[in-house]
Amino acid sequence: MMNGRDGMTRILFYLDGFNNDPWKQSLLDIDPAIDVRSYPDWGTPDDGPAYAFVWKPKAGLLKQYTNIKAIFSIGAGVDHLLSDPYLPKHIPIIRMGDESLKEGMAEYMVMSVLMHHRKMPHILNLQRKQTWQHIIAKPANQVSVGIMGYGTLGKEIAKKLAPFGYKLNTWSKTPKPAKPNITHYSGESGLKHFLENTNIITSVLPSTPETTNLINAETLSWMPKGAAIINAGRGTLININNLVDAIDNGHISGATLDVFPEEPLDADHPLWKHDKIIITPHIAAITRMDSAAEYVIRNIKAIENNQEPENKLDIERGY
Amino acid sequence: MMNGRDGMTRILFYLDGFNNDPWKQSLLDIDPAIDVRSYPDWGTPDDGPAYAFVWKPKAGLLKQYTNIKAIFSIGAGVDHLLSDPYLPKHIPIIRMGDESLKEGMAEYMVMSVLMHHRKMPHILNLQRKQTWQHIIAKPANQVSVGIMGYGTLGKEIAKKLAPFGYKLNTWSKTPKPAKPNITHYSGESGLKHFLENTNIITSVLPSTPETTNLINAETLSWMPKGAAIINAGRGTLININNLVDAIDNGHISGATLDVFPEEPLDADHPLWKHDKIIITPHIAAITRMDSAAEYVIRNIKAIENNQEPENKLDIERGY
Repeated sequence: MMNGRDGMTRILFYLDGFNNDPWKQSLLDIDPAIDVRSYPDWGTPDDGPAYAFVWKPKAGLLKQYTNIKAIFSIGAGVDHLLSDPYLPKHIPIIRMGDESLKEGMAEYMVMSVLMHHRKMPHILNLQRKQTWQHIIAKPANQVSVGIMGYGTLGKEIAKKLAPFGYKLNTWSKTPKPAKPNITHYSGESGLKHFLENTNIITSVLPSTPETTNLINAETLSWMPKGAAIINAGRGTLININNLVDAIDNGHISGATLDVFPEEPLDADHPLWKHDKIIITPHIAAITRMDSAAEYVIRNIKAIENNQEPENKLDIERGY
Repeated sequence: MMNGRDGMTRILFYLDGFNNDPWKQSLLDIDPAIDVRSYPDWGTPDDGPAYAFVWKPKAGLLKQYTNIKAIFSIGAGVDHLLSDPYLPKHIPIIRMGDESLKEGMAEYMVMSVLMHHRKMPHILNLQRKQTWQHIIAKPANQVSVGIMGYGTLGKEIAKKLAPFGYKLNTWSKTPKPAKPNITHYSGESGLKHFLENTNIITSVLPSTPETTNLINAETLSWMPKGAAIINAGRGTLININNLVDAIDNGHISGATLDVFPEEPLDADHPLWKHDKIIITPHIAAITRMDSAAEYVIRNIKAIENNQEPENKLDIERGY
């Protein structure tokens, strides 16, 4: 692989709080000739062209390295980059979309949908009360599952849910091409119909001004009685107080939350104790080093061949 | 549909403790001409040929009705019939195998496999401790899922698990034809290899002398460290004390149990409190009235046309 004047692919890696060595090794396993530099040993901008591969880099850092040709996010979300007021927006920014992330998210969502459909939160509470009680679930073909966010992750979720026979609805900001056996809704105008027709919501929506507090007292009231919500996108989607109220007054049956407005969720937060809310510690989809390395190197090649990389951030849309 | 001398299909229904009317109606919805008789209004053996459709009938009852041409079990298990010393074994006995039972069991098993693979029992415990902790699961292609009992239900489980990319192993009493991407083991001699190569066991095995206590201290020791067990077949499969010991000494990571040696599980039973065991109240697969009625009427037709009915009990095998 050739890149720039010295013919070497240079990757500037940033991941605070984790051992960076296995990540470096995953890249070198694919191409031993890559010059992988872990922060703070990024050298100087004069060292030649480079690609940033980062998670939550310090604000202003990326701007200093004017040799960066493209920025790869270690996760699917890019809010950790967009919060940097000095983010160099003129270069390509690429969201993670490797196989492990898609697989992990689909596993989490199928598991959580089945858990709500089969009333596991209730059954887990019965276990705590040492109570044997016959619990009947509806047949899957009488349950509508909605997917909010219908990009790389949403499509994988739909694919993995389909064999179970649920009615599938999807919602996204912009209209998407029709698919067999999926009812697609879009935009502000489509949201009400989507929610009215959905028993179990799964969300992988990114954090943008439009998605912030999108699930609130009003939109929750549009959902059918007994509906459930699974959120593994971003915590800003849901007004947590409104959700707790809707669960406590019996309109919403429960929720599974992997993401929160502030993470980690504070040890004293009352959400932990809510017996109709299952809390997971932002583990729905974890980028696996081997497939992430493969994804980054594949997309560096695409950029160098003047092809469009996968999952390139549209700054205007925010994802 | 014609049956016997008076040209009428007669079904003798027995289900104690539940309202029988919706069941009768499900049969009549398919064929209003059926003479459905709910116990004790079964009439006399002289009323003409009839089919029994029963769950846990009183011992000796079926023998008295010499007009019964075949016995349909309301559930997939037939231990409730085989425990009757007077069971008329010369007539066909048919296990339930309707779509709702297959669907329900596959939902339950996929949900439970994903829960153990993604370490949900541990995550649920962390929630109780209000603790946020990063939890990493192995990629699915490094996890072996084993299916014990590879008949109608086991095949549906394999089909629904396949898209997730697990390594699939199956075990049954007798050898089965090879299937792509599934490693099949059988018989006593195959059990050790099956268990040695399985990280998550799912069992839908029936209760027979051979399956009783099949999972015990010795066979548990054959499984890899960290293995998990999901049992939705019959409670007699597992020596519960041995399982608890193997979990407590760290060899087995946890279990999900839907069936127990005695049901309902006693309110004081220590199992309820075990934080690595998820207990569900025998709800993995519930026969749905509409599809069960369809199944029974379809198989009565088969019998009357001298065709082999589905899932006919082999008395020698015991399932």
